[in-house]
Amino acid sequence: MEKQALLYEGKAKRVYETNDEKIVWIEYKDEATAFNGEKKTTIAGKGKLNNEISALLFEKLREKGIESHFVKKLSETEQLVKNVQIIPLEVVVRNIAAGSLAKRLGMEEGEVLPETIVEFYYKNDDLGDPLLTRDHIRILGLVEETELALLREKGLAVNDVLVPYFKNLNIDLVDFKLEFGIGADGEVMLADEISPDTCRLWDAETGEKLDKDVFRRDLGSLTETYSKLLERLTVAP
Amino acid sequence: MEKQALLYEGKAKRVYETNDEKIVWIEYKDEATAFNGEKKTTIAGKGKLNNEISALLFEKLREKGIESHFVKKLSETEQLVKNVQIIPLEVVVRNIAAGSLAKRLGMEEGEVLPETIVEFYYKNDDLGDPLLTRDHIRILGLVEETELALLREKGLAVNDVLVPYFKNLNIDLVDFKLEFGIGADGEVMLADEISPDTCRLWDAETGEKLDKDVFRRDLGSLTETYSKLLERLTVAP
Repeated sequence: MEKQALLYEGKAKRVYETNDEKIVWIEYKDEATAFNGEKKTTIAGKGKLNNEISALLFEKLREKGIESHFVKKLSETEQLVKNVQIIPLEVVVRNIAAGSLAKRLGMEEGEVLPETIVEFYYKNDDLGDPLLTRDHIRILGLVEETELALLREKGLAVNDVLVPYFKNLNIDLVDFKLEFGIGADGEVMLADEISPDTCRLWDAETGEKLDKDVFRRDLGSLTETYSKLLERLTVAP
Repeated sequence: MEKQALLYEGKAKRVYETNDEKIVWIEYKDEATAFNGEKKTTIAGKGKLNNEISALLFEKLREKGIESHFVKKLSETEQLVKNVQIIPLEVVVRNIAAGSLAKRLGMEEGEVLPETIVEFYYKNDDLGDPLLTRDHIRILGLVEETELALLREKGLAVNDVLVPYFKNLNIDLVDFKLEFGIGADGEVMLADEISPDTCRLWDAETGEKLDKDVFRRDLGSLTETYSKLLERLTVAP
């Protein structure tokens, strides 16, 4: 496999063509951003940690029957993934109130939701990734109703694998953001990354934050936090 | 009917008990507020205009088979309505992109939506009346799913009456906000008011705004605008 032209550079990753049009080459960057890019810095070692953690979680999901774009890890900061067209929706699954949900609904952070919920946000930096209702998604023509139901279902399926997986490591999966893509054959596939950049993870005993809120809220060293998390994941049975 | 103790004072109305526990006495105030109360002023004559217009529109809906809490107009600024428990959801029906929808979805104001949509906002000043998805409404326990479907249906039914009614007056009904209440027998009933405070109305030829945006955006005299609107409504066949 040969790394070719840069296709796209996002906030956290670079995407390159390869000599196989069905595969792209991902490079995880050391940039940390929050609040739609308002807070931004370079943190040496972050790309490596997210590449490792994301690869590990995609493999875990695959073991449990949930396919994704992930093909294989190439190096400390690189992985190969299937070339998909990203659906411009962020699919957010929430088990416990935190962040924007707690603020929107006037709930205490940490309040366990009466049921797991799924939210959809418009992946659009210019608009600040706004929350969308089903009606909004329909008039924007972003996905069909059946596809939207599928995204919801797949989000909940990922949750059903990851909640017990983390629980077993004494970590609460508070919420997480997924992105999906359309593959070469038109199939809807889990894509992007699953990492402490895209999940809220709290130590089940101490409540310690093991995710990007450490950066967002200036609670300590991001790389120390992510390293500790990776350690807990890699000793997992 | 006898006006008794003040039950509640809102931004635009005062609500009084009467000697009939099933009926309350509403007084329309001259306050104009916008942006969750950030912009606020007293405009002599506003209460009278909204009382007139709201009574007229509730009567129009009744003629077309849509019941509401409205009983009768008492005076220039007062009306009797059924005593209902207001459901804390603002039901917003939209035909044309404007205001927060245009901003949220990155659409031009004035773009006709491919279909009429219904949004639900949490009627909660402290939280700034946030947009809610169906999942949010469920976990907040605000209404049952069947009731939510009913609110949507009733919102669209009101739209189906008001769009042609205004169109006949050469006015486009861009969007509007409804509130509903639970009556003494548990029935869901249209409540609150329908007025240029709660609707966006544009002259179909000139695009002139005939609603509260005149106040929100400092486009001219609110009472002149509302008076001109009332005139067009009262000459209607």
